Amino acid sequence: MRLLKLQQYLTMHHALLISEPANIRYLCGFTGSAGSLLLTKEAIFLITDYRYTATATEECTGQPLHIICRDRANESLAECIGRLTITSKTLFIEPNHLTIALFQELTDTLTQFNILNIPNWLAEMRACKDETELAATRQAVQIAEQALAWWLPQVQPGMTEASLATLLEEKLFALGAEALSFPTILLSGPRSALPHGKPSKRQLQRGDFLLLDFGAVVAGYRSDITRTYFIGEASERQRAFYQAVLQAQQAALAVAGPGVSGHAVNAAAQQVLQASGFGEYAGEGIGHGTGLVLHEYPLMREGCEVALQPGMVVTIEPGLYQDDFGGVRIEDDILITSSGIEILTKSPKELTILCA
Amino acid sequence: MRLLKLQQYLTMHHALLISEPANIRYLCGFTGSAGSLLLTKEAIFLITDYRYTATATEECTGQPLHIICRDRANESLAECIGRLTITSKTLFIEPNHLTIALFQELTDTLTQFNILNIPNWLAEMRACKDETELAATRQAVQIAEQALAWWLPQVQPGMTEASLATLLEEKLFALGAEALSFPTILLSGPRSALPHGKPSKRQLQRGDFLLLDFGAVVAGYRSDITRTYFIGEASERQRAFYQAVLQAQQAALAVAGPGVSGHAVNAAAQQVLQASGFGEYAGEGIGHGTGLVLHEYPLMREGCEVALQPGMVVTIEPGLYQDDFGGVRIEDDILITSSGIEILTKSPKELTILCA
Repeated sequence: MRLLKLQQYLTMHHALLISEPANIRYLCGFTGSAGSLLLTKEAIFLITDYRYTATATEECTGQPLHIICRDRANESLAECIGRLTITSKTLFIEPNHLTIALFQELTDTLTQFNILNIPNWLAEMRACKDETELAATRQAVQIAEQALAWWLPQVQPGMTEASLATLLEEKLFALGAEALSFPTILLSGPRSALPHGKPSKRQLQRGDFLLLDFGAVVAGYRSDITRTYFIGEASERQRAFYQAVLQAQQAALAVAGPGVSGHAVNAAAQQVLQASGFGEYAGEGIGHGTGLVLHEYPLMREGCEVALQPGMVVTIEPGLYQDDFGGVRIEDDILITSSGIEILTKSPKELTILCA
Repeated sequence: MRLLKLQQYLTMHHALLISEPANIRYLCGFTGSAGSLLLTKEAIFLITDYRYTATATEECTGQPLHIICRDRANESLAECIGRLTITSKTLFIEPNHLTIALFQELTDTLTQFNILNIPNWLAEMRACKDETELAATRQAVQIAEQALAWWLPQVQPGMTEASLATLLEEKLFALGAEALSFPTILLSGPRSALPHGKPSKRQLQRGDFLLLDFGAVVAGYRSDITRTYFIGEASERQRAFYQAVLQAQQAALAVAGPGVSGHAVNAAAQQVLQASGFGEYAGEGIGHGTGLVLHEYPLMREGCEVALQPGMVVTIEPGLYQDDFGGVRIEDDILITSSGIEILTKSPKELTILCA
């Protein structure tokens, strides 16, 4: 029971206000877009309003919490917290989510509290996935890969980036994705050098890079996969670019495992990219945790000294991006296990020329 | 030019930090998910990082701004702002978007500034749509309604809420939606009483309410449409419920127009709902502005005294929701014109029994 686990971090003097929707969903299953969780050592409250009260009742069955239906027109969130019987002196809030407006409301109304930033408890809890979370993640990967396998033979020169992205997205929904992990990144030719560009009306041509970064959501959990292909042919320099990224990704995968830091995983990939002669085109950072939110703790980048732990799901996605030439990125989702890693993404990564 | 219009609100002593993605997109066209706009009377900066610099250059062509590529690993946003030559003494921030974490970083680093909440300038600017925004909105409505017209004959008893939602969503993408306005709300039978519930595996049965709330996104702009149908048959009480909501919606539409407040529009609908004998089941508030974000300023609810103005696009969506019985909501998107309103949504609203 995640709520009880989090509650164990609290002393009698502490209360905790959770306002990030993904944290709320993680802790108690509530998916409404307006709600706040208030935890003390003695009681847990889910504060929402009439629009979501029935949903809360349905989704939070069995959870050790009281549902509070706040009348938004006549009571602020701070006033509502004020009328609940809370003896705590310290109120922890989420600094990366709580807005200044709500913070001001809390400090103006709840003068009895010392308001502090919550420690990293929740990010750490969420980073290690349980069996239910892993099952959803595996299904999200599987749907993405089935869609990809169906989509690849449809690719033809002359098709636009946007139409190819739509084709793939329709298939993701047809296969059971409840949402896209993020708007599909599908970029061709020199546009593939945009690390986060959007599909345009550009038509595929022979000799293009084709970079595809996409994913599906199942029960809230995301896949996040990137593959880069070539259309019709690939020049020597394009091939060298591709092999450098593939080798960098394999180096990172070889290093990743329990006890290894995101810093070290990144360094393994960056070393290969630097040695390839294309080092100046390397992207910063090569991955991130993923789950209910696309980019979660921990990060695979310079300075991230947190050790990977069994149960973490992270992406490994080194890339090279040269303006006016193009970009290559290869991304897998991996699970950290007690003995190493399991690569969840199975789609081939060998250099592939489509429509040859 | 929206940036220059906003700049006119500033004096020489003011700087303005915009961090909400929809505000940034609205002002300069940049759609990257990591960026901040810094405006002073003398200069405008878009601060982003290497991932989005090329996108920024592509999307902000012709905009009167300087693109700053910040090295995230070695420079905080506050440090980056600190090195730009800014003589202003007051820094306005967005209280409804800026997080405590970033606020703390700003106050710790930029001690020369007095940090204040931005007035309502941007919400007011965004509320009144220009021709480009209206064209995208109209297309978003059109795609939603075409999908709805195609989808209605597919509905059959025995189908699940979730499968019906997927069917509609696939059609929205096939017709050119770039995204869903929000996860489709499709609820049947007693579940239709959940004002914001999610599609489940419940199968449609004769005598069900079928409530559908959905929309498409085109160029960032959203449609937001609700219709409620009946499956096979409708009881007298269901019919009375429906007619009460329909009459309430028509009363609100009759009142809405330039100079009228959201409070007054809401009151017109609530009066009908109260008089219907079902008043205790009425939802609070009956609409909202919509645009780059689903729920925008202004709101149609008690206490919202802001006068509607020509160019505003708002939804009108009264509803009745009775636990263990069901719910009805009818929602149109309307444009406020100089002489009244234009109802953008054309789909029929007469009581409709599907699969009769």
